[in-house]
Amino acid sequence: MATAEGSCSDDSSLLNLESIRDSLVRQEDTIIFSLIERAKYPINSPLYDNKYNNLPTNSLFHFFLKQSEALQAKAGRYTSPDENAFFPDNLPTPLLPPLNCTPVLHPPGDSININDQVLNLYLKTLLPLITAKGDDGNYAVTAASDVNCLQALSRRIHFGKFVAEVKFRDAPADYTPAICAKDREALMKLLTFQSVEERIKKRVEKKAMIFGQDVDLNENDNEGKYKVNPSIVSQLYGDWVMPLTKFVQVEYLLRRLD
Amino acid sequence: MATAEGSCSDDSSLLNLESIRDSLVRQEDTIIFSLIERAKYPINSPLYDNKYNNLPTNSLFHFFLKQSEALQAKAGRYTSPDENAFFPDNLPTPLLPPLNCTPVLHPPGDSININDQVLNLYLKTLLPLITAKGDDGNYAVTAASDVNCLQALSRRIHFGKFVAEVKFRDAPADYTPAICAKDREALMKLLTFQSVEERIKKRVEKKAMIFGQDVDLNENDNEGKYKVNPSIVSQLYGDWVMPLTKFVQVEYLLRRLD
Repeated sequence: MATAEGSCSDDSSLLNLESIRDSLVRQEDTIIFSLIERAKYPINSPLYDNKYNNLPTNSLFHFFLKQSEALQAKAGRYTSPDENAFFPDNLPTPLLPPLNCTPVLHPPGDSININDQVLNLYLKTLLPLITAKGDDGNYAVTAASDVNCLQALSRRIHFGKFVAEVKFRDAPADYTPAICAKDREALMKLLTFQSVEERIKKRVEKKAMIFGQDVDLNENDNEGKYKVNPSIVSQLYGDWVMPLTKFVQVEYLLRRLD
Repeated sequence: MATAEGSCSDDSSLLNLESIRDSLVRQEDTIIFSLIERAKYPINSPLYDNKYNNLPTNSLFHFFLKQSEALQAKAGRYTSPDENAFFPDNLPTPLLPPLNCTPVLHPPGDSININDQVLNLYLKTLLPLITAKGDDGNYAVTAASDVNCLQALSRRIHFGKFVAEVKFRDAPADYTPAICAKDREALMKLLTFQSVEERIKKRVEKKAMIFGQDVDLNENDNEGKYKVNPSIVSQLYGDWVMPLTKFVQVEYLLRRLD
């Protein structure tokens, strides 16, 4: 069941395109489950407001995300090369000794972190699309659901580093001229396969239909109602997840010869 | 999308049997999603070991769960009548002022908390059934998945308080003699509907098949492989979730006339 989950014990799986692909497919389920769970609650805007001046940070959500990351850092989350924090500065050290991992990624690219973009996209664009209007006061469970969504999306998007590393190792000559020329457009072209992207968009839409239906023992009683609109999931992948993953790949490749 | 989610804004939904039923059905999805997500990782036994003496608590997982609850308490989670902490003592006070809720539950029953049993059942019985053997070192993500599972199961099981309150309000005369006689067996009989329980077991099994399949664009390519064994989910409900929910109901009713 465990595939390319990023620990030392299976670092080799992070350098194997088939295994990376399996993980990306599996991560689709995680992302869709997390969106469905977040959609249980209305948008709950006060959670993201800066109006609570008695808080140590900007908003209750900002506080919650930062503290969640600090706790997970203590449990060692960010020692894994496939995890990137939203607030990477001053994270506490892990309580357990680190595993002795062989670095998989090229160091200059390893540090790429576009979570500012992921957070902004999630809060400003995605949340209003998947939630109902309103405020039910359930801020803690809402924030915990948000953290699950954000971590799943961030992990998926930053997996571009592994994709890029493997593609480069498989065919360095294909990428080296564009890297040397710092030609982002050429790299983006090399990394873009329209038919593959269309398949992924269709698959995540299908998954959103399957996972977001109301299942009962009677057949065909769902009447096309889904907990998260499947076309929004398809749009999420087409407009943001895949473009941002490719952005990470391009940025990684540009640093690959440093 | 939001049903009986326990905030003040919909307290009335926690006293409406139809709405409670809808929430219980929806919670099945949450529980199954969380189990599927946990099953991505092997059992990762060191996470639960007491061998790390440099930790402030028994095991890394104990520490993680306790600290997660402390953080969520700050965000107000345990002000909601449908949330019960695993470590309810000395939780920090919420950072935001509490909502002015009308109490829904009868106070002596409100404090029922069988999370010790839920935690023990989860760690000792359920985890070995849904995870592969092994240790991939991904303790932080594993622990976070465990917390999601535990909170979903705890919420479902303690929902028995609302079920009991509504059933009592609807027909106090049916329950009063058994309550006065402290007759647990008679109360358990009044709360048991074999055919309903069979339907629930079948439904969660079906959900585990639907949510735990590998979805691809080709049809019929799953070959009966599921991320969590559907019969284990059915067993989880039949042997533990429903009996423990009824245990909570009986305990609640026994305090209902105090």
